[in-house]
Amino acid sequence: METMKTLIIKNKEAAEMAEVPKPKPAAGQALIKVRAVTTCPQWDLHIYHGRPMFEHHGPVPFPYMPGQPGHEMTGVVDEVGEGVSLKIGETVCAWRDPGQGNPGCYAEYVLMNEADLLPVPERLHYTQVVSLELAMCIASSILRLRETVGIVGKRCAVNGLGPAGIVALQMLRAEGADTVIGIDPLEARRELALELGASEVYGANSDALTPRGEDGAIDVSIDCVGYPSAVRYLMDHTQEAVALFAVQRDDYVLRHDGLSVIGYPGHYRAAAEYALGLIEGGKLDLRPLITCEMPLASYGEAVAMLRSQEAIKICLIP
Amino acid sequence: METMKTLIIKNKEAAEMAEVPKPKPAAGQALIKVRAVTTCPQWDLHIYHGRPMFEHHGPVPFPYMPGQPGHEMTGVVDEVGEGVSLKIGETVCAWRDPGQGNPGCYAEYVLMNEADLLPVPERLHYTQVVSLELAMCIASSILRLRETVGIVGKRCAVNGLGPAGIVALQMLRAEGADTVIGIDPLEARRELALELGASEVYGANSDALTPRGEDGAIDVSIDCVGYPSAVRYLMDHTQEAVALFAVQRDDYVLRHDGLSVIGYPGHYRAAAEYALGLIEGGKLDLRPLITCEMPLASYGEAVAMLRSQEAIKICLIP
Repeated sequence: METMKTLIIKNKEAAEMAEVPKPKPAAGQALIKVRAVTTCPQWDLHIYHGRPMFEHHGPVPFPYMPGQPGHEMTGVVDEVGEGVSLKIGETVCAWRDPGQGNPGCYAEYVLMNEADLLPVPERLHYTQVVSLELAMCIASSILRLRETVGIVGKRCAVNGLGPAGIVALQMLRAEGADTVIGIDPLEARRELALELGASEVYGANSDALTPRGEDGAIDVSIDCVGYPSAVRYLMDHTQEAVALFAVQRDDYVLRHDGLSVIGYPGHYRAAAEYALGLIEGGKLDLRPLITCEMPLASYGEAVAMLRSQEAIKICLIP
Repeated sequence: METMKTLIIKNKEAAEMAEVPKPKPAAGQALIKVRAVTTCPQWDLHIYHGRPMFEHHGPVPFPYMPGQPGHEMTGVVDEVGEGVSLKIGETVCAWRDPGQGNPGCYAEYVLMNEADLLPVPERLHYTQVVSLELAMCIASSILRLRETVGIVGKRCAVNGLGPAGIVALQMLRAEGADTVIGIDPLEARRELALELGASEVYGANSDALTPRGEDGAIDVSIDCVGYPSAVRYLMDHTQEAVALFAVQRDDYVLRHDGLSVIGYPGHYRAAAEYALGLIEGGKLDLRPLITCEMPLASYGEAVAMLRSQEAIKICLIP
């Protein structure tokens, strides 16, 4: 029987590589030879440190499902099951994760449902597309903002310049925002935001931005932080709509008559296609999200760099 | 000099009719001979009882501006200023109020900016169109819901079956909602809602509706109450989006990840045209909002009927 290497988080703060059987694709599935996987700080930090990702999930079960929580993946189709139209050798991205109940992408090979894969042009380097799943998520919020209140010509802001925020500001720019403001306590992230097209950057809770209700306030904003104080700050400085991208863990207070608060609309394929279109058109660059590349076996080290905020994302190579 | 009769709220809970000069239209204005005006419970109850409509407005100034707060009006063009394309004798509705700083519609004649008037077909009875301004307001929220999360085939709910709620439920029905649920503590209003096409009705804070997160929860709802407990109830039973139509006076708590909260998007003419289209197409009936007709001179009595909730709206005839 053929085997492959996979990462297993055996226990809180203890990950190791293991040799497991190489799976076979069932009908509708494709086996992907993984080229690269990027960390997703939300998932990696929660699971590795034994904290449930969502309150209703209960305690993290260890050993954790092999290959999980890896889900931002690009690779090549290695084998296909019945009824699959992807071709062997084709380059794909996971636009949606395989589900935390199934083996994940931190592995040499991963089984995916064809429906969760998007073919990507071979001419794109893997660092340009590996984080497509994240870009799909943010596209979902950005497209909802576009439908709801519009972005063209607006004064827009992104709170939190981690991976999501860095993507959000590029998308707002691509959608024709007049101004894109980046907010983050870390100077290095504010500088990166300026390089990627932010018009203005501010530290957290800055007095320099105009309060809601006054001329010059933000029109439309997106929260990629998720703390009540961060959301409060955005609501108090935004005129039309605040999109909540970060997972909500605590109550927020809604104080302003007329302000819309846009919840996360959910994953969908067209949002991934939209994001891929921006990448192909040179309007979205995911490469600056990757602080460095590391072998998958150095996963513990990678998570430590996420925790210290030295790294935005790390690109892990199986 | 020609004169006309107008209502003046002289002091808290003291309204009287007065004889004032009949005004002349300036450029861009039309003088309207008022056919009918409907009460707007929010404005009438606040102003008549000396409570400011919005916190930032400060105390109600008495004597109040003549003819105010009357603004849901239909009438006939009596005289036009320079550059006005409306014709003398044409039937119109106010789709936007003349502004509380200008004389209002509780009068024999009122000066309006042409931009705030919409011509209406003569074949419609005045009771079918007099409350068009209210319908425009609600259309603004309904159209925003339609753009944001969609209404077709959805399970929808209206909290508060006063005038706004009665219009909202007809609009949700017209937009193709699968189910329209009406919620109100008053049985008479729940019965009226059923007559006007509500699929199900419930008392306030009913245990009979399915909580958010479970199959059968409301998809989309609109709050026409404005109390934190009413908004809490809707948020706890709605899956996708709650539109806040009622003026917000207190903080609301936002607890649910993924829920959108749609603020009031503001007045606009196309929303009035949309509402008029529904009336002409037989999909929106504003007549059931009118509990009775009274002469304008009986204004104090009319407000008492609003206060006791005996009346939904009263149609006042100058």
